[in-house]
Amino acid sequence: MTMQPVMAVDELRSFVDEVFPQAEIHNWLVNDLGPGTISVTMRVSESALRPGGTISGPTMFFLADVTAYLVILGHIGKVELAVTTSLNINFLSKPPLGDLMAEGRLIKLGKRLAVCEIHIHSATDADTLVAQATATYSIPPR
Amino acid sequence: MTMQPVMAVDELRSFVDEVFPQAEIHNWLVNDLGPGTISVTMRVSESALRPGGTISGPTMFFLADVTAYLVILGHIGKVELAVTTSLNINFLSKPPLGDLMAEGRLIKLGKRLAVCEIHIHSATDADTLVAQATATYSIPPR
Amino acid sequence: MTMQPVMAVDELRSFVDEVFPQAEIHNWLVNDLGPGTISVTMRVSESALRPGGTISGPTMFFLADVTAYLVILGHIGKVELAVTTSLNINFLSKPPLGDLMAEGRLIKLGKRLAVCEIHIHSATDADTLVAQATATYSIPPR
Amino acid sequence: MTMQPVMAVDELRSFVDEVFPQAEIHNWLVNDLGPGTISVTMRVSESALRPGGTISGPTMFFLADVTAYLVILGHIGKVELAVTTSLNINFLSKPPLGDLMAEGRLIKLGKRLAVCEIHIHSATDADTLVAQATATYSIPPR
Repeated sequence: MTMQPVMAVDELRSFVDEVFPQAEIHNWLVNDLGPGTISVTMRVSESALRPGGTISGPTMFFLADVTAYLVILGHIGKVELAVTTSLNINFLSKPPLGDLMAEGRLIKLGKRLAVCEIHIHSATDADTLVAQATATYSIPPR
Repeated sequence: MTMQPVMAVDELRSFVDEVFPQAEIHNWLVNDLGPGTISVTMRVSESALRPGGTISGPTMFFLADVTAYLVILGHIGKVELAVTTSLNINFLSKPPLGDLMAEGRLIKLGKRLAVCEIHIHSATDADTLVAQATATYSIPPR
Repeated sequence: MTMQPVMAVDELRSFVDEVFPQAEIHNWLVNDLGPGTISVTMRVSESALRPGGTISGPTMFFLADVTAYLVILGHIGKVELAVTTSLNINFLSKPPLGDLMAEGRLIKLGKRLAVCEIHIHSATDADTLVAQATATYSIPPR
Repeated sequence: MTMQPVMAVDELRSFVDEVFPQAEIHNWLVNDLGPGTISVTMRVSESALRPGGTISGPTMFFLADVTAYLVILGHIGKVELAVTTSLNINFLSKPPLGDLMAEGRLIKLGKRLAVCEIHIHSATDADTLVAQATATYSIPPR
């Protein structure tokens, strides 16, 4: 399974700015795009915080989903219409307040379906997983 | 498996207003609480919309998660600290723009874990499922 | 979402006997096939039992998977090659020894993907769920 | 997250022989047990094959489940009664006929819950994932 990105990181970033004009609200950034892999950082704002001071589930869901979307996009090109068909997320530990990082890995890139595994950890502690997710995307016929 | 709510709908609503002061932002409302079941409506605001005009995945994730939380709360009482341990969501059809309804059903209510099945549909079309989810919550020892 | 079976129960049973000659080993039987729904009984043999006297996880996985397969087949016709792409199963309570029943419900029947929700209970206690599953099948192009 | 096994591989093997006298039927073998990780090989017999010549879903489910069980056991000791609460499996590619290998990784080892990620590939092709699973186990109070 030799997967190769079809875009450079900068190209992916520019494309994202075009199609997600609200991306700055979420404040996420592609760090790196490699063969079958991606690394994304998300700045966590006050609004993502829940009572008790933890980062909300939907925020982590969003990060997992966008990470899967971006690694797929980076490997199949500018297919805006790939859509999530399912996402399974496990919340593993309470994250410290602060930015999150997600490492995505394509575990299948078929003609119709792509599957991505995502590991989320705090930007300041790469060893403790905060959440793990598996996302399936449907790829439109070309 | 005879599950009985331990709160009235009004009591659940008041409790929610207390612990989720930001609930109005999300604009959701408990319609009904029955034995093992709940019905929740969510007003979908512009900010939940994605390019292409559909309702975002995180919005539906949020609705599924809060529905599970509320039906558990309604059956075990005011245990603020029950936390999601995992959530599996399937996106089934593109929702029309407009409010969403979620029907939650407790399929397990154990001492340590509760599992809830959630069906999400458009408020104007109860027959077409937009998303289906299964959420597992960890219940703190009492 | 008005789904209609394209086969009668007897037709589905005959088809299954053809393609799963080993079906008798598993000893399962389609009870009923309705619009978007199916009911399947599985006789649980000694070999499915685990130390401690419970029914094994793989046995319940098998029942969930075959139930999804059969309800899809019953609604799209004799498409032998539909394949499971993912299955999420929650084990909810320890089943009593004895036969199991599965109730399957199609929650999506698209051109490329079908999603089925499965509830498994003991044949002698329909009120206590033993397991719940969600299965996704890929449907080959026709 | 520094996880350390509490058993040697040989000790784990002996324990398994005791509690799973039928293990030889399934023909699986622990290759290695490391900090938070395990590697398991399963010999695939004729009976696991499906029409079309592929390895059956329940066989892969079994391998994923037993891999999670063994890595947990190897890290918490001889706790026979840890039980699977949920398992999510994605089937990624059709496996070639032949033995399978599973690589398990503990992504959470809490007091009450353990979560394990499992990658399954053919014993003769480590680069192509055949299936990926996430299993959650409930750990009994000690």
